[in-house]
Amino acid sequence: MKETKEAAVRPTTVDGARLWSTLQALGRIGETPAGMDRIAFSPAEIEARAYVTGLLREAGLATRVDMAGNLIATRPGRESGLKPIAMGSHIDTVPMGGKFDGALGVIAAIEVVRTLADHGTETRHPLEVIAFTNEEGGRFHRGLFGSRAMAGLLVPEDLTVVDAEGKRLAEHLAAVGADKARIAEAVRPRGALAGYLEYHIEQGPELERAGKQIGVVTGITGRFVLEVDIQGTTNHAGTTPMDLRHDAMVAAAHVALVVQRLAAEEKACRVGTLGVVHVRPGAVNVIPGAAHLEAEFRDLEMSRLEDTERRFVAACARIAADTGTKIDVKRQEIVQAAPTAARYREIVEAVARGLGHSTMPVPSGAGHDAQAIAQICDIGMIFVPSRAGVSHAIEEFTPEDDCVRGANVLLATLLELDRSLDAKETR
Amino acid sequence: MKETKEAAVRPTTVDGARLWSTLQALGRIGETPAGMDRIAFSPAEIEARAYVTGLLREAGLATRVDMAGNLIATRPGRESGLKPIAMGSHIDTVPMGGKFDGALGVIAAIEVVRTLADHGTETRHPLEVIAFTNEEGGRFHRGLFGSRAMAGLLVPEDLTVVDAEGKRLAEHLAAVGADKARIAEAVRPRGALAGYLEYHIEQGPELERAGKQIGVVTGITGRFVLEVDIQGTTNHAGTTPMDLRHDAMVAAAHVALVVQRLAAEEKACRVGTLGVVHVRPGAVNVIPGAAHLEAEFRDLEMSRLEDTERRFVAACARIAADTGTKIDVKRQEIVQAAPTAARYREIVEAVARGLGHSTMPVPSGAGHDAQAIAQICDIGMIFVPSRAGVSHAIEEFTPEDDCVRGANVLLATLLELDRSLDAKETR
Repeated sequence: MKETKEAAVRPTTVDGARLWSTLQALGRIGETPAGMDRIAFSPAEIEARAYVTGLLREAGLATRVDMAGNLIATRPGRESGLKPIAMGSHIDTVPMGGKFDGALGVIAAIEVVRTLADHGTETRHPLEVIAFTNEEGGRFHRGLFGSRAMAGLLVPEDLTVVDAEGKRLAEHLAAVGADKARIAEAVRPRGALAGYLEYHIEQGPELERAGKQIGVVTGITGRFVLEVDIQGTTNHAGTTPMDLRHDAMVAAAHVALVVQRLAAEEKACRVGTLGVVHVRPGAVNVIPGAAHLEAEFRDLEMSRLEDTERRFVAACARIAADTGTKIDVKRQEIVQAAPTAARYREIVEAVARGLGHSTMPVPSGAGHDAQAIAQICDIGMIFVPSRAGVSHAIEEFTPEDDCVRGANVLLATLLELDRSLDAKETR
Repeated sequence: MKETKEAAVRPTTVDGARLWSTLQALGRIGETPAGMDRIAFSPAEIEARAYVTGLLREAGLATRVDMAGNLIATRPGRESGLKPIAMGSHIDTVPMGGKFDGALGVIAAIEVVRTLADHGTETRHPLEVIAFTNEEGGRFHRGLFGSRAMAGLLVPEDLTVVDAEGKRLAEHLAAVGADKARIAEAVRPRGALAGYLEYHIEQGPELERAGKQIGVVTGITGRFVLEVDIQGTTNHAGTTPMDLRHDAMVAAAHVALVVQRLAAEEKACRVGTLGVVHVRPGAVNVIPGAAHLEAEFRDLEMSRLEDTERRFVAACARIAADTGTKIDVKRQEIVQAAPTAARYREIVEAVARGLGHSTMPVPSGAGHDAQAIAQICDIGMIFVPSRAGVSHAIEEFTPEDDCVRGANVLLATLLELDRSLDAKETR
């Protein structure tokens, strides 16, 4: 009987108008003339939690807040012994942010469970909808807070932070029903979830440029952050001949172009950026004696980032020899790449095509909660285009049709995963 | 009779030991463990003025302070109607400066008049020894103050300055016997002097590198200071593909290398330096959207600087097109070059060779009082080597032999000018 019932009522589309109006309603909580201001633990974010909790309860889910402040809603499955499949994202924003980043993934996951409720559809696996805490790191500048807490990835510095107003993490957690002293209880061991699906705007221009509707996310890129210190010789800009100089800025310019060339021309990695440049002493009539640079490289394959780093260090050594300077390169931070599971990519691709949507594989250059959750289960991600690639700004926008299209892919992907994952695979 | 007397007692060398010990004595006034601290109008500089005034009076000269604070000593000539030939430099230093910059020129000029007194030598022209006020600009950051006052080159901003302790120019001038209200009286019209000779350390490495003893200064280089503002597009360093970026730092790196190439490789001008670089917003994960640069170019020929500027602006336009940025270049400051008079160069060259010294023509990349005085009379300059080219630092050093050699060239140049200039030439 159950088999027949499931097959009969398996929905193929969400209620697009409801999705859009719910997303707009959430976008009014914390809205300002300069963009969204729904930083984690702010009154607006706490109001948004209540709004989202209400929607989840209306859809028949049980909700709780874990000890890290993550909002978790559960819906039972019909087969016993299966682990939950989770869907989610976050509802906090950066200051002066947009209405789509994070919010779309949470509201679409809610729309999926509403649609299942409307059709009386029971899934084999239990389902979870999760709104992770403080993904943006806007409060303490420590991003992916809730997802890292769940994956057991917090470090001691994450817990001793104080925000700009002098308020401590413990106070903020208490305000949302969590408890810093019991934060370890938020950790879920590897295998606690059958899988995790996150739907998000691209926050980049690749889909729009290619004219594709659905991004099959290949993974979240890893990141090497390198510090470069250049030591030259400060000297008189008027009296020192060009051939006797050891100009730290000339060396820095060559280093900047190596960062650019490695990514743009040699394709050693996906992107490379030199965002921090300090030149000393910084007077127009003095040859710079020192420069401090901070560069980053991103790619989905850590081995390519290691190769990029090798080539970068070798190029810096040549620049040092050519300019008569001393150049030290050291690692400031390494963020591991988080590939999506091949099976998830195949399903997203297949269901999107089945719905008549054009697709394209695309890596995520931005960080997402999925990246932390990849440490405890397989992950899959779905992207829809961002207009002009803009995000973290009031101009952030994805049209209703695109938002609904992605939600339908989320629904179909969830149902196909639920159908095809067997107990063995879900550990 | 007079002709005979002059020829008979024309000295060929100064008292080298006296020159060196006097220079060392001056170097003890304001000496600190970090270098000389004899900033203009400081107690040390005022003490140095008194010391120098005493030496000049002992040598039989009449001394006065003009309304800009310049210390001027005069020695009569034997022919009536001739204008004075002046020798000089400055006795103020930068903070943490050296004992040779400026001081050597003043003490050598004093040694020349002492030597003339020792030999009872009368010159045809009256002579002046001048210690110009606040050459370094250390007090108000407005250099060549006294020489510009004498040449009528002060601008209103020079007179409204207040120093770091809140003390005004008028107070400082009063402390040395000058008067801000009457500062215009310090101006000397074009032709008031028959000529001006300045002897100085090179403050650069050219003479030492070439192994030459005397620098025949070709002039003080002019200077173009250009501000470069680059407008790109701030964007996410992770999600923005390399080919869709408008990275202000990449453009800035190309601009830096153009500054270098124009001077070092294309030899469009003598030196080019990019000393000021500000990159915004300055976060490692954000593509820079703006950069502010300040570059300078120096050369003895203003037409070459104008050509350099044209080529620089054209290169910036190409960089803007290539990087998809907007680049504005504007002039911040133009300092006119001050060539030495050909006749003075010929005399310096001839007398130095006559004394058995090796010579080399060399421009001055640093500013000197001679540069302002060039507006009112012909100028000549004599350089001796600076060890390792270092100046404005405690390591600034020129050995006794070199200092004496230059003083002998100063003496011989003065006497040859005195002999050969006729009344018509001296206006």
